[in-house]
Amino acid sequence: MADAAARLIALDWGTSSLRAYRLGAGGAVLESRQRPWGILHLPEPAPAGFEAALRGIAGDWIDAAPGAPLLACGMVGSAQGWAKVPYVDTPADAVDLSARLQRIQRPDAAPLQVVPGVRCPGERPDVMRGEETQVVGALASMPALAAGSQLLLPGTHSKWVEACDGRITGFRTCMTGELYAVLKEHSILGRPAREAATAAADDEGAFDGGVQAARGREPLATQLFAVRTLVLEGRLAAAHSLDYLSGLLIGDELRAMSGAIQRDAPLALVGEPALCARYRCALAAFGRADVPVVDGAAPAGLWALARSAGLGR
Amino acid sequence: MADAAARLIALDWGTSSLRAYRLGAGGAVLESRQRPWGILHLPEPAPAGFEAALRGIAGDWIDAAPGAPLLACGMVGSAQGWAKVPYVDTPADAVDLSARLQRIQRPDAAPLQVVPGVRCPGERPDVMRGEETQVVGALASMPALAAGSQLLLPGTHSKWVEACDGRITGFRTCMTGELYAVLKEHSILGRPAREAATAAADDEGAFDGGVQAARGREPLATQLFAVRTLVLEGRLAAAHSLDYLSGLLIGDELRAMSGAIQRDAPLALVGEPALCARYRCALAAFGRADVPVVDGAAPAGLWALARSAGLGR
Repeated sequence: MADAAARLIALDWGTSSLRAYRLGAGGAVLESRQRPWGILHLPEPAPAGFEAALRGIAGDWIDAAPGAPLLACGMVGSAQGWAKVPYVDTPADAVDLSARLQRIQRPDAAPLQVVPGVRCPGERPDVMRGEETQVVGALASMPALAAGSQLLLPGTHSKWVEACDGRITGFRTCMTGELYAVLKEHSILGRPAREAATAAADDEGAFDGGVQAARGREPLATQLFAVRTLVLEGRLAAAHSLDYLSGLLIGDELRAMSGAIQRDAPLALVGEPALCARYRCALAAFGRADVPVVDGAAPAGLWALARSAGLGR
Repeated sequence: MADAAARLIALDWGTSSLRAYRLGAGGAVLESRQRPWGILHLPEPAPAGFEAALRGIAGDWIDAAPGAPLLACGMVGSAQGWAKVPYVDTPADAVDLSARLQRIQRPDAAPLQVVPGVRCPGERPDVMRGEETQVVGALASMPALAAGSQLLLPGTHSKWVEACDGRITGFRTCMTGELYAVLKEHSILGRPAREAATAAADDEGAFDGGVQAARGREPLATQLFAVRTLVLEGRLAAAHSLDYLSGLLIGDELRAMSGAIQRDAPLALVGEPALCARYRCALAAFGRADVPVVDGAAPAGLWALARSAGLGR
């Protein structure tokens, strides 16, 4: 290859997708790739499928830089993953996480190191795997957040993370993304859009209508069915009904977390730009405008953890 | 047949199942049957499938009593049903409903009359089809409820109905049953129970734990994921995790409707006894003990509507 050699081959390996980053000096992303090989969708059956996925997405990078360390975060470290890596309890920072990397030996090849997830103990415990690395990356990218902030990582399972003095001190999960997906695919609320001949472009008006409804006095339980009745009455287009549902669910998440939103501490969104843009609009409707969005947090976090562990220098 | 002739052949015809009742003098249920032939699961493709289902479930009753009128309620009167019957707006009583029965002609046979659904207009309109007939039946069965009461009809789409002076004056739908079903079948929360080797008996302790959690300060949005983490931590048995989820969702419905529960008016449960028993326990946890359960409301309502329409004398 013509460009600089890899210092670190970094993997963000979740349930449904696998992302790989070839990182150069200073953690610069030289190249990135994505495959649908989440731990439940490997190209071959597990356990051989893990190695096959790793070679499939990054075999040429590994061959070109055999000395580069390999570091992964995410569900690859879960009971269904390549190796079960015990959680680290909150409070936890990059030093705690990098001290607990778990090494997976690979025959005649560099080992893969896996970042542990984080557990928030308590009456209703909470867990994350992968998001802890994005938080480390976000704090490294925006040092102003490290002293004390709320980080919101939207997704299948949204995470609301409290950071203080560079540590993850607590967090809460909202299953908003999964709730949206199952209602879209399997409930009566998704039927009009499923039956619509063509997929519609995102409709901001319908999304905002859902957010505004969620801000009102009625709880979600008595509002969900309106996604159906508004379509029945011709007041919501079938093609836009899922935007309304998305607004309703994201709005309900923000209402549930209104204490965190109203707190006088920096708030940042971390994650995929299109989804963060939806949350950004919804946060503005809840009185929190101009929330910054941190992109590329996963490779930044993997780089920071590798450096903290003495890898990838 | 040896026993009394049918005065009315009554059908409760929903989305996923079809129930038929052979009613004798005074509306007595002489015989009842159930088939999985909801309007979306007919034994043959629609439209012929409707007649096939009707003959399949009640052909012998019809042949034995060719003069008996046929009356149906439920989704059979929806756009996906046998004929689309316009909604009657609230306030609506048995007289309003029986005046708007829609007749479906059947060649060389008695017509099928279909009860209209009810619509509650407003900013977020609401609709029901089938439950209005159960309400009519419940008010006929327990006249003390007619003056002013709240009727709770649990199900796929729970209905909370305000009755006043024998009329349906308003109602609200909570999609609790459907939410439970899609989360059980398709989300990560249902996975432990789906993977458990054998189905467990209902666990009252786990159900009550979910109800109690829903009564607390945390909203549902931040509590759902605990169904997973409590299993991960060994504090909730995989086999009982769906009971906890059920308690959480029913508890959230009750919290959303706490205004109706705390009102100083009679409250009654109408519907399937096992499901009503779960709601009854949950209502007791919310401070409303000994709520009566009305069973058999659908045939009672169909009988009352038939009499009001001059059928089935």
